[in-house]
Amino acid sequence: MTTAGTPLVLASGSPRRAELLARMGYGFTVCAADVDESVRVGERAWDYAARVAGAKADAVWNLGLVVVAADTCVVIDGEILGKPADGVEALRMLGRLVGRAHIVLTAVHVVAPDGAVRAFTSSALVRLATADPEVLAGYVDGGEPLDKAGAYALQGRGAALVESIDGDPTTVIGLPLRETVDALRAIGLPPPVF
Amino acid sequence: MTTAGTPLVLASGSPRRAELLARMGYGFTVCAADVDESVRVGERAWDYAARVAGAKADAVWNLGLVVVAADTCVVIDGEILGKPADGVEALRMLGRLVGRAHIVLTAVHVVAPDGAVRAFTSSALVRLATADPEVLAGYVDGGEPLDKAGAYALQGRGAALVESIDGDPTTVIGLPLRETVDALRAIGLPPPVF
Repeated sequence: MTTAGTPLVLASGSPRRAELLARMGYGFTVCAADVDESVRVGERAWDYAARVAGAKADAVWNLGLVVVAADTCVVIDGEILGKPADGVEALRMLGRLVGRAHIVLTAVHVVAPDGAVRAFTSSALVRLATADPEVLAGYVDGGEPLDKAGAYALQGRGAALVESIDGDPTTVIGLPLRETVDALRAIGLPPPVF
Repeated sequence: MTTAGTPLVLASGSPRRAELLARMGYGFTVCAADVDESVRVGERAWDYAARVAGAKADAVWNLGLVVVAADTCVVIDGEILGKPADGVEALRMLGRLVGRAHIVLTAVHVVAPDGAVRAFTSSALVRLATADPEVLAGYVDGGEPLDKAGAYALQGRGAALVESIDGDPTTVIGLPLRETVDALRAIGLPPPVF
């Protein structure tokens, strides 16, 4: 068990994840390690996301720290979509996603000061509306898709592509907030504000 | 049909609605009229939300303007929950909502420069997790619930109460973004950025 003074580290460079944690009043340091995010041959999406979240956590955890690490990916037709390499790939991803449903997975590892890990994976179903190719091209040109798994951002202009989601919206943004707060609360770090 | 230079007015004082419109690059003026938001005897939620959205639009529209107006309410057990009057009512509302599902309705009126109205109502199902009374009390004490229909904010710390939603998250926030953008596009005001 930890006390409220324990240093909290967010093992992710995503400003969306930082905004979600900060929203709950947590003070934390951002420490994003470079980990191999390539998908292994035959690896299933759930295993992939959990493995990458675990690798991010392992890369920064030290005795006495609390670490929150997460990995988000989009799954369609059994294929894992990560962040697009460039605008062309972003446009191709969006072209596959519009007009139908896909799954967004976010795997989270919360590591306690003694090294105990609470790991969970949250999934949501997202249905994107059909969209004209010029609308998608404009969205890609604006730059938002480039650092987002699946090439869209629910918390950004990508919201205007979304028909519906079934699940926790914060899972789609990149950090299932309720479950993460519950895991932090369980190791003695309740949110400073609620 | 309008042209891109038409003045756009958001007939709502909600900073959440303004953020959603601004996110798409729209320039607009906020003009929130005081309208009667009391529920009429026997009035159904869909009729209520559409009536109030229409009243907000009527109160500010003038020839040559494009107006976006919206009203959001929470429906549970056939009862309409608006904004709580105070902390006590907020706590009572949250106590009813946690651990189960409710409906969020957002009715939108988009009025064209010639007075033609595009009206639609979007609904979403929201399931809040169970929560300890002290967590809810802390949430109310923080002040966020006080100006929110149903006493929580999906885009705020209230996200940590949400188990899942089924629908468009922006409907829950207060302005179904995709449908609103589609309505504006249809009267000649596509989003300046996407």
